[in-house]
Amino acid sequence: MTDAAPTTPPPFDCLALIGVGLIGSSLARIARRAGLAKRIVATARSAETRAKVAEMGIVDAVAPDAAACVAGADLVMVCTPVGAYAAIAAEIAPHLAPGAILSDVGSVKQAVIRDIGPLVPDGVHFIPGHPVAGTEHSGPEAGFAELFDGRWCILTPPPGTDAGAVERLAAFWRGCGSLVEEMDAGHHDRVLAITSHLPHLIAYTIVGTATDLEDSLEAEVVKFAAGGFRDFTRIAASDPIMWRDVFLNNREAVLEVLGRFSEDLSALQRAIRWGEGDKLEETFRRTRAIRRSVIEAKQA
Amino acid sequence: MTDAAPTTPPPFDCLALIGVGLIGSSLARIARRAGLAKRIVATARSAETRAKVAEMGIVDAVAPDAAACVAGADLVMVCTPVGAYAAIAAEIAPHLAPGAILSDVGSVKQAVIRDIGPLVPDGVHFIPGHPVAGTEHSGPEAGFAELFDGRWCILTPPPGTDAGAVERLAAFWRGCGSLVEEMDAGHHDRVLAITSHLPHLIAYTIVGTATDLEDSLEAEVVKFAAGGFRDFTRIAASDPIMWRDVFLNNREAVLEVLGRFSEDLSALQRAIRWGEGDKLEETFRRTRAIRRSVIEAKQA
Repeated sequence: MTDAAPTTPPPFDCLALIGVGLIGSSLARIARRAGLAKRIVATARSAETRAKVAEMGIVDAVAPDAAACVAGADLVMVCTPVGAYAAIAAEIAPHLAPGAILSDVGSVKQAVIRDIGPLVPDGVHFIPGHPVAGTEHSGPEAGFAELFDGRWCILTPPPGTDAGAVERLAAFWRGCGSLVEEMDAGHHDRVLAITSHLPHLIAYTIVGTATDLEDSLEAEVVKFAAGGFRDFTRIAASDPIMWRDVFLNNREAVLEVLGRFSEDLSALQRAIRWGEGDKLEETFRRTRAIRRSVIEAKQA
Repeated sequence: MTDAAPTTPPPFDCLALIGVGLIGSSLARIARRAGLAKRIVATARSAETRAKVAEMGIVDAVAPDAAACVAGADLVMVCTPVGAYAAIAAEIAPHLAPGAILSDVGSVKQAVIRDIGPLVPDGVHFIPGHPVAGTEHSGPEAGFAELFDGRWCILTPPPGTDAGAVERLAAFWRGCGSLVEEMDAGHHDRVLAITSHLPHLIAYTIVGTATDLEDSLEAEVVKFAAGGFRDFTRIAASDPIMWRDVFLNNREAVLEVLGRFSEDLSALQRAIRWGEGDKLEETFRRTRAIRRSVIEAKQA
């Protein structure tokens, strides 16, 4: 795919958002601001969230359920935790309009193809996607129109997907400010296991380790968090359900990279135990180069 | 100690800075701006850094070596990696002025007492300290006067230290914008092993794991770093020598907390392997509370 600057593609007639958390509500905001859809309809599982979204006025209509939400939509975006996808697919399949694009924003992609793929009716274009963007905040109030600006969105169309539909979805994401890349779903899951899933698992672990300390020590951990710990607490404040589903649905890739990580950690542990300063220093120098690359890639 | 708002204490006659990296150069800037010392003298091991500091004009004089730097100073701050402390103490001990306060900014404290303590002449007040503040940048240009603002500085005076000298040093740090806390050195090392040393070790490890990937995958890790990885690259860009010395000099506390962390990580690994979603979710929920505490403590 290309990585051109944001442009305004011809709008979709109706964008249906199933789930209105951080990502869904950010999509609603940018889609309206950039004129990417003539009409935006959304739904959420809880009546409370639906009422809140209606009150916030960030969409044109709130549908009572996913089936009603997708009726007549030519772009359907599933924006819930991935563990809910199979049930949603079963619910919406009979109501999807012919020629519609069905996509999602989940952080894993093979499991999405596994859970939704078999249920997609003929004539509907199924193109899984993943905007690599987010914050530690959740819920409809957490969204903002600039969330995707300069960030990558990865599309993983299954083999044989209509190229025109893929390009239309790519243009939508570029209209949101994203850079778009096309990738095999399995490769996506392996890359993201390293850049996103492992970092979250580690952050959750280290903050969890701190919560198991005696109370007096835990209070001091909070007080002196500025030494590095605070960055981990931010990552470990991410949505628990979303992340539970990520780990359950990208098991193999996460376990594989976790194995490498554990080996590397053991090697550093051993270097500390035996006072091998050269080995520590060598590792700590190597990692600086990656930081420079991340800054140069404008993803810092 | 107290945590009163910044006030201007009576200035020291001469502040000697041994080492002018991120911390030392920040101290020079705030000490001058806040009028905490009538005169500031600094030295650095390399002629290049000394020349740079002279050119930057952030101190009143640059001394050719540590012995010359401390002559006549009533506050001496050692701001080098802790591995250099023993040699510096031997060099400066004969030149320290009677009644001077000798302190430091190192991230470990028991090792500092071990390395410097025995060499301190009678009449000199030895009060180790640790400002819990920093960035991933190093060197004299990286410093800024606001670095310590609202951050804790921990003082670990050995038993029997003159209370008036401790209060004078505390007032200096409050003048820098810090909140000041007094603590036993061993307790400090245990708390910081969790809040700072372990997070850095983990970040170095995970970024190191990524550098061992095949080249094509490494490029993608950089590209899609926004999924969480980028925060780790920032932490893992910290000064390699400083951190080597931290791990070599806080071995027991780091290995102890690393053991806890590894156990907790194994438990989550097992939960992923066996698809135990409830266990994952429960851990991921618990960690949110700590984030709230860190935000409430204004250390986010």
